Amino acid sequence: MNVAIPLYPRFTALDAVGPYTVLAFSPGCTVTFVADRPGPVPDDHGTLTINATASYADLPAPDVIVVPGGSGTFDALSDEALVGWIRQAHEHTRWTTSVCSGSLLLGAAGVLEGVPATSHWSVLGELAKYGAEPVSERVVTAGRIVTGAGVSAGIDMALTLLGQARDEETARSVQLLIEYDPQPPFDGGSAKTASRAMMERALNLLPLP
Amino acid sequence: MNVAIPLYPRFTALDAVGPYTVLAFSPGCTVTFVADRPGPVPDDHGTLTINATASYADLPAPDVIVVPGGSGTFDALSDEALVGWIRQAHEHTRWTTSVCSGSLLLGAAGVLEGVPATSHWSVLGELAKYGAEPVSERVVTAGRIVTGAGVSAGIDMALTLLGQARDEETARSVQLLIEYDPQPPFDGGSAKTASRAMMERALNLLPLP
Repeated sequence: MNVAIPLYPRFTALDAVGPYTVLAFSPGCTVTFVADRPGPVPDDHGTLTINATASYADLPAPDVIVVPGGSGTFDALSDEALVGWIRQAHEHTRWTTSVCSGSLLLGAAGVLEGVPATSHWSVLGELAKYGAEPVSERVVTAGRIVTGAGVSAGIDMALTLLGQARDEETARSVQLLIEYDPQPPFDGGSAKTASRAMMERALNLLPLP
Repeated sequence: MNVAIPLYPRFTALDAVGPYTVLAFSPGCTVTFVADRPGPVPDDHGTLTINATASYADLPAPDVIVVPGGSGTFDALSDEALVGWIRQAHEHTRWTTSVCSGSLLLGAAGVLEGVPATSHWSVLGELAKYGAEPVSERVVTAGRIVTGAGVSAGIDMALTLLGQARDEETARSVQLLIEYDPQPPFDGGSAKTASRAMMERALNLLPLP
């Protein structure tokens, strides 16, 4: 199973690395970071760079794509190299997936017409612009399209995907290997339970370009 | 608050990027990836490389260190540049922390003598070799030393640390921003509830050097 994770400037690191870690530990999975051209791609803080090792042209037809979100998503919506690659790759994928605002890029590629999908809580409503049906759930599976909510939801999304794409025993073994028995120190990690003041405070943490 | 995350060959990506993402979103935090010398450092699959932007010599006295684990930890135990840096940095840190088998590196640096600490379930007992008291909990705080369990526990560790090092409101806002309201698709993500067969299956997923 060949998995491609496209990187673009100001992606959020955990959006990409959560699913990467889950899938890279899975037997028979090869995960490749791709970009317009190979080389380092900076995240939304500019302090972490991950090296893309292949170009979009090198990997036109992966089995799975995982599109991360980040502060750079809105700029990336007009990146035709990225959006065009998603559009064409989706014609051949077994699974087309996203984390966080990455689902807006699936939308821009025309993949979500009439499809239930999720995103980061702050941009969930934007999905309707692309004909998608916004769903406030952590992981939404619609046929071969699997979308995850914000940032950390990529881990849940990838384990869910692995259970479907491979088998539940494999997914369980990866979950145990990465000791995914989460114990968040606070409640309120979801917009469903957070106050409006806390939501504003959270969004103010986003780095400016 | 200057945070340094040392990288060494065959670290586990999520060990480093979970805490990185939490702390990098925190106001007033600067996170730097360090290594023996600046440049790309490959993870335990060899398919993800993160660029270290500073050398150990460049950052002798960060406020916080976060030491990740990985398949490469056992080789790194004899990496005197890394272990010596941890030992010296710890003399000045406000917080000395680790994720997964990274706690063994704290141990090798002589930091855990008589200290309760945790690690990945598969190597928890190894901590006793360094005079530490192995504790099977997700996050263990002992004075200014905070250790997290395996891989994904780095997110819980970093949010706990942030609540202590800064304040609970800031930690809650970061938790909401990264939408950390986990919903693991399976149970059994902890060695406390997994079968021995599943534990063996999980460890067989570790990539060979």
